Amino acid sequence: MRDPPRTLQIDDRPIGLFDSGVGGLTVLRTLLRSFPNERFLYLGDTARAPYGTKPRQDICRFSLDNSQFLLEQNCKIIVVACHTSSAHALPHLQETLPIPVLGMIDPAIEALMQATRNQTVGLLATPGTIASNVYQAKIQALYPHTRVTSIGCPLFVPLAEEGLFDHPAAEPIARHYLSSLQGRNIDALLLACTHYPLFRRILQEILGPTITLIDPAERCARHLQQHLRPTSQRSPSVQFFTTASPEKFRQIASHFLGTSIDRICVVEKTLA
Amino acid sequence: MRDPPRTLQIDDRPIGLFDSGVGGLTVLRTLLRSFPNERFLYLGDTARAPYGTKPRQDICRFSLDNSQFLLEQNCKIIVVACHTSSAHALPHLQETLPIPVLGMIDPAIEALMQATRNQTVGLLATPGTIASNVYQAKIQALYPHTRVTSIGCPLFVPLAEEGLFDHPAAEPIARHYLSSLQGRNIDALLLACTHYPLFRRILQEILGPTITLIDPAERCARHLQQHLRPTSQRSPSVQFFTTASPEKFRQIASHFLGTSIDRICVVEKTLA
Repeated sequence: MRDPPRTLQIDDRPIGLFDSGVGGLTVLRTLLRSFPNERFLYLGDTARAPYGTKPRQDICRFSLDNSQFLLEQNCKIIVVACHTSSAHALPHLQETLPIPVLGMIDPAIEALMQATRNQTVGLLATPGTIASNVYQAKIQALYPHTRVTSIGCPLFVPLAEEGLFDHPAAEPIARHYLSSLQGRNIDALLLACTHYPLFRRILQEILGPTITLIDPAERCARHLQQHLRPTSQRSPSVQFFTTASPEKFRQIASHFLGTSIDRICVVEKTLA
Repeated sequence: MRDPPRTLQIDDRPIGLFDSGVGGLTVLRTLLRSFPNERFLYLGDTARAPYGTKPRQDICRFSLDNSQFLLEQNCKIIVVACHTSSAHALPHLQETLPIPVLGMIDPAIEALMQATRNQTVGLLATPGTIASNVYQAKIQALYPHTRVTSIGCPLFVPLAEEGLFDHPAAEPIARHYLSSLQGRNIDALLLACTHYPLFRRILQEILGPTITLIDPAERCARHLQQHLRPTSQRSPSVQFFTTASPEKFRQIASHFLGTSIDRICVVEKTLA
């Protein structure tokens, strides 16, 4: 980050977030709790989702498009609420844009490594993220004595997008994935996909209280605090943008944010 | 089909199948039962899967590539074991190739409409197939008094590819999708995706015995019978080709075919 903390100054422009689709709404949900007076703009690039299977140069171009849109909307800071964009495009965005840009990966690894006491951690992510090796390589580079067990969980994203994260099917599927952790002695587990915090309750129940679950959005909120000039307003709001069908976005958004569809579909409607 | 039945002639060349990935293996499984003495070549174009979200012209090009590969392997007939390719590319393949080409859609609709007595049917498919309207439009054109209820089942493909079609999670997910059929009075239900026959037992248990489940592969086998010059050999075999990771293909293939990994990974290995 290039900008120093400026907590005494006021800035009433909105905070921008983008994601390849709806997953970043779990990040938005966390930021809304941490910054209840701020205005947020959320852009879900659903027309070009998913990013995980696309070439790096495409992901960089999409990420720059999204960032420039948020810049044109007069955002004061951008949160890249997408693990794939954070992995491939963040340095380029930070060099190119005239406002601070925060990603998901550094906060995620920071929180994970502060949580573990035995340097034995787990990583739940999409098969694409696991195959990209982004998290594993960065953890090994910064903390070379860490043992990482990675588990690809391809069913969590479609389950979440169907609204079935509290459905009777979610627990047996979560047990299926977590069975690979048996005997690994992990004490901290990173949810390295924006959809996965929706399964947090079920995962914690299966894992028990001794394993710490890390939702990167919580540490991202702390980073944001450091780089944010706060608003003077008392009129919190969220404005949603999507590049594809607003109907589907609205439907899934209501599941993810836990608010009614009415409150989401209206642009500039107060959410708090 | 342009070729008349030639059942008295002998042709020892193999039967070719292609699919965008592993789903067509359920079609292969059915054909292996019906033609236990034939040789089969199966091409899974996993590198370019899924087809369902891609433009029609790409699907036509991929389908022609796959067919030409099978033709070069000296196949006597090609089964397009992919609903998306069948929908978009079949007429072009039938015009272009010098051997008979069979698709999935006509056999599927034929079997469905023979099974229903009240002209009230259901259609389980991927959201892409539902959105393409291929089945609904063809049913309405041929049988205009038919009532069709379509249900997109986005979790069935990843569940099947994870090998979880008999897992405790499969039943609640199947119940979730089938709940949309309540009160519709359907008496026949089409499994319009190659992965879905893996859920047949669970679906039939939930639906009860009065609703007929249609797996298009069974009717496809009958069509194949009509167009096939049978082999004189008694050395059945399957040879697998995939355009991407053979390891993943082998793993999923073992789930789908219900045979051990050893027997699938060996090219030209006898399967019967």
